[in-house]
Amino acid sequence: MSGDHAALLAQLADKQAITEVLFAYCNHLDRMELDALAALFTEDCVVDYGPEPHLHSAGSAGLRRDLERMWRWARTAHLLANVTVSLGPGAGRAAALSAVLAWHERPDGSTATMMGHYVDELVKVEDHWLISRRRQELLGNDAGFTVNINPFERLARPDGG
Amino acid sequence: MSGDHAALLAQLADKQAITEVLFAYCNHLDRMELDALAALFTEDCVVDYGPEPHLHSAGSAGLRRDLERMWRWARTAHLLANVTVSLGPGAGRAAALSAVLAWHERPDGSTATMMGHYVDELVKVEDHWLISRRRQELLGNDAGFTVNINPFERLARPDGG
Amino acid sequence: MSGDHAALLAQLADKQAITEVLFAYCNHLDRMELDALAALFTEDCVVDYGPEPHLHSAGSAGLRRDLERMWRWARTAHLLANVTVSLGPGAGRAAALSAVLAWHERPDGSTATMMGHYVDELVKVEDHWLISRRRQELLGNDAGFTVNINPFERLARPDGG
Repeated sequence: MSGDHAALLAQLADKQAITEVLFAYCNHLDRMELDALAALFTEDCVVDYGPEPHLHSAGSAGLRRDLERMWRWARTAHLLANVTVSLGPGAGRAAALSAVLAWHERPDGSTATMMGHYVDELVKVEDHWLISRRRQELLGNDAGFTVNINPFERLARPDGG
Repeated sequence: MSGDHAALLAQLADKQAITEVLFAYCNHLDRMELDALAALFTEDCVVDYGPEPHLHSAGSAGLRRDLERMWRWARTAHLLANVTVSLGPGAGRAAALSAVLAWHERPDGSTATMMGHYVDELVKVEDHWLISRRRQELLGNDAGFTVNINPFERLARPDGG
Repeated sequence: MSGDHAALLAQLADKQAITEVLFAYCNHLDRMELDALAALFTEDCVVDYGPEPHLHSAGSAGLRRDLERMWRWARTAHLLANVTVSLGPGAGRAAALSAVLAWHERPDGSTATMMGHYVDELVKVEDHWLISRRRQELLGNDAGFTVNINPFERLARPDGG
């Protein structure tokens, strides 16, 4: 196999592996498998869902503890789309952008739905890709969703547009 | 090409092919192309949408007949996310987990929306991947959706959580 | 690397690259990065969102200008699922089918949601895949969405079905 072929094959395999990590986050969260979810992150990860302190998590152990807040929902569904991986810079590093539809139901049956981006950095540790930084940005939400997620910035509208 | 490279390439190709089968199910269902949909399943498949007998289908011919019930909807949209394939055990077998958003509209304009998992087993038959077992589990739904899909089980909530 | 292996690797890489183009359309549209969005299309592309003249765009420059209409929304979210690529006919050509969930919010807070297919043709130009034809078809929509997107045709319902 030529070096070019081997490099292309490795790139496709890395993108596939990273995509599976991002899907696993959603699936583990809906099932509240928080140990398995935390294992998708580096021990020293930084996770930033929003500007308020309680929406920042430091470390996979902290993230695991903080996400226990999701027990306040009776049911959730996280569907991930638009997964786009950029490998590098350098070996063993990557960035990913993805879009989530997150539906949440309270014990009283009322619901909250949001759509947002995950802006991620990943590192390869002992042959596994792990999320080292995650930032969530809010594309849209219904009236039932009131968590203060980081805003998503569109480009500035041109003059007179 | 080394054996390792060839095996990795085959794995990526199998995952891609299986993902395309799962997408085809959604696209054929929305268009009510039931012959093409049934051809994605083994002749002896078992499909389990829910605990009631009319939500179990035996065989691709039975599934094709049973899914004629979808004509009661005027329009549907099935969007599939989180497709995660595990190859094996052994050659020619695989498991897949995916998450669907399914929107349905009745002739009177009222709608029903659900989100669920497909838990699938697939086999490779004459170079085509086919679904041999499919189980659907309900992540969430709106009030308009009243079909008794198999429940999705979150982990048990820890004491005092 | 055998010719078969090289061809399979190239196919997987092309499908991945095309999928990334389709995701980039969604991400650029939500951010209103219209220059980057237009660069995903051939200069002579034809884009057909619906039967009315103002929903037809000719050329990437025309598309870029026409999509300024999206500024009427305060926020949008485009999530793409079911991406299915068919390579060929011949080298450097491909067709793609995908399903989008598109959520839109007006400055007054009212919303419009639709689900639809993108039916695309792509060509490879200087190692980049570009969309040369895009047609959108409407799978479903809520009452708030009133744009006249091309209809999606289900098969004819069998007699007495």
